[in-house]
Amino acid sequence: MVTLKDVAELAGVAPITVSRVINYPQSVKERTRLKVERAIKQLNYSPNNIARSLVTNRTNIIGVLLSNIANPYFSEFILGVETKARKLGKSIIICNAMDYESAKSNVNLLLEQRVDGMIFTSLEFDSIALQEQLFRELEEINENRKHTVPIVLVDPFPRQTLLPSILIDNYMAGSLAMEHLHELGHEVIAHLNLNRDANVWIDRFRAYRDAQAKKGIQLNTGHIALIDKEDVRVAEEAAYSLLRADPRPTAIFAANDLLAVGALQAAHRMKIKIPEELSIIGIDGNDIAKHSYPRMTTVAHPRYQLGELSAELLIDLINGKEDVARQMVNCTLQVNESTGPVLIQPEGIHE
Amino acid sequence: MVTLKDVAELAGVAPITVSRVINYPQSVKERTRLKVERAIKQLNYSPNNIARSLVTNRTNIIGVLLSNIANPYFSEFILGVETKARKLGKSIIICNAMDYESAKSNVNLLLEQRVDGMIFTSLEFDSIALQEQLFRELEEINENRKHTVPIVLVDPFPRQTLLPSILIDNYMAGSLAMEHLHELGHEVIAHLNLNRDANVWIDRFRAYRDAQAKKGIQLNTGHIALIDKEDVRVAEEAAYSLLRADPRPTAIFAANDLLAVGALQAAHRMKIKIPEELSIIGIDGNDIAKHSYPRMTTVAHPRYQLGELSAELLIDLINGKEDVARQMVNCTLQVNESTGPVLIQPEGIHE
Repeated sequence: MVTLKDVAELAGVAPITVSRVINYPQSVKERTRLKVERAIKQLNYSPNNIARSLVTNRTNIIGVLLSNIANPYFSEFILGVETKARKLGKSIIICNAMDYESAKSNVNLLLEQRVDGMIFTSLEFDSIALQEQLFRELEEINENRKHTVPIVLVDPFPRQTLLPSILIDNYMAGSLAMEHLHELGHEVIAHLNLNRDANVWIDRFRAYRDAQAKKGIQLNTGHIALIDKEDVRVAEEAAYSLLRADPRPTAIFAANDLLAVGALQAAHRMKIKIPEELSIIGIDGNDIAKHSYPRMTTVAHPRYQLGELSAELLIDLINGKEDVARQMVNCTLQVNESTGPVLIQPEGIHE
Repeated sequence: MVTLKDVAELAGVAPITVSRVINYPQSVKERTRLKVERAIKQLNYSPNNIARSLVTNRTNIIGVLLSNIANPYFSEFILGVETKARKLGKSIIICNAMDYESAKSNVNLLLEQRVDGMIFTSLEFDSIALQEQLFRELEEINENRKHTVPIVLVDPFPRQTLLPSILIDNYMAGSLAMEHLHELGHEVIAHLNLNRDANVWIDRFRAYRDAQAKKGIQLNTGHIALIDKEDVRVAEEAAYSLLRADPRPTAIFAANDLLAVGALQAAHRMKIKIPEELSIIGIDGNDIAKHSYPRMTTVAHPRYQLGELSAELLIDLINGKEDVARQMVNCTLQVNESTGPVLIQPEGIHE
């Protein structure tokens, strides 16, 4: 194995000079620096990370843990993290966490890799309980390693965590969707959501319930479908039953864009015209909304900006900033083609 | 900083025993192992990776470099890599490579992290030349570090690389798409592709040209659109011009599912019935094909299996296997709802 000493010998400099070239290149005369860099290249020397981090106490690497890389929701988020991190001189490595066990083992992996800090986003396991367990463990890491391995959590996490967090207001996102439908004159609004024990889904459901209550519209269980799998076909099946309810809803508020696309497919197959006979709205602002026909009206999360924000917050923490407030990020309504005013008021609405 | 010695002291064992627990846990009596593990936990000791790798010469980490994590194409691939890697006792860390510079810096990052091996997939930069430059550099790494940092390339790479590769037969994928359209009776087939200097696009175009030539159908440049951006709206715009060509095509072969969705949206807006008046076929088998209405006929890449295969191949290389042949993976036609027989033969086809 090539050592720093070998490089120093070949370059004809002291080992400390090699170390300086690696860690503080700007502190070394250019001629010397070039000599050392040539020797590093020639010997194919890869600086020992740990040795380097003992000097600078930094690896300049940020770890990002995602619950499921297969979810397109994360793509733009990662781009935001990476772009901002690069600007601030950090690289990122990404780990996937399919479940609680793999999240734990990947947290250890990132710690072993001596990352400067970690970002966790949307770790949605089977239950809030498992989520909370991981966060208690993360809080311990954060406590023990204060100033060395800061952690930033990004939506949707239990609100009671002590860790620095960036939250999305899912209740507000749902409220925006409902407000849009109400403004278009809809009252018989169906709701399609996931039957899952996580705040993100519960908050969107609460927004639906409260908005209808505020309008004085009684909840009709025939207008609510909770499905077990985040899948377009399962959503489509559930939407058929919503669209066969009496009275037939004039609008569907789906808890995310994927479910909204399922509803759209059901409507297409039932020859229901969008938006003339039925309005559909989702949440997220994924590409999936852009790719649907008609283009889906949605409440978009600022995912790229969320990524930038969390990288910024984390790097502040790494640099020793202490008074980091919890941040809440707002969503915005994106009106596209899948929603419109009520044209045909179904019968029996105020029976 | 907590050292291995601290752990040994607290556990009341020799430092070598701690090292053994970390590296060869099965070689240590359970009682001792538990004692050491408790001490590790209590002190929050994170084993020094490099020290460990000096003993086992392994970090058990595989690095995966993607060209753009925002492309949903990679999601299933990563799941395949991760699932297989986990089964074989490896973790994975993922890096993004938006361009040649970031690819290079992330390769160095992975090497510094002492990964056991690396998988590179679909690094599509601005030109084949830049791609080839990176691969020459990778070949050097592979040469210098034989047996320590093996590399596996996954589609779509320059064919002339010496590195172990898993390739997708893009020409065959295109041929399958064209064969399907020909079997349905289509002859006036338009082609929508990207104007980009990479084999993946060129091979799919070649498949189109050759299939039409074999049928004795002359190329009509009015039936070919090459766009500059992989974007649904840009594809939609290009599709309008294809659908206004004389004779109007009865089918569009799009070089991937994203472009196919653009064509589908153009058809919807022109009130052209799919598949009665127009068949559309894509390539990839992304979720995007499943989410479209009607569901898109496509030629699917076995992405999950590709992921598994590349993890397997890489781990074989890490374990010292030498005679690794280049592997070619086949695609499969998935007939869905967007293609059908020619019902109305446009006029002037055999003029």
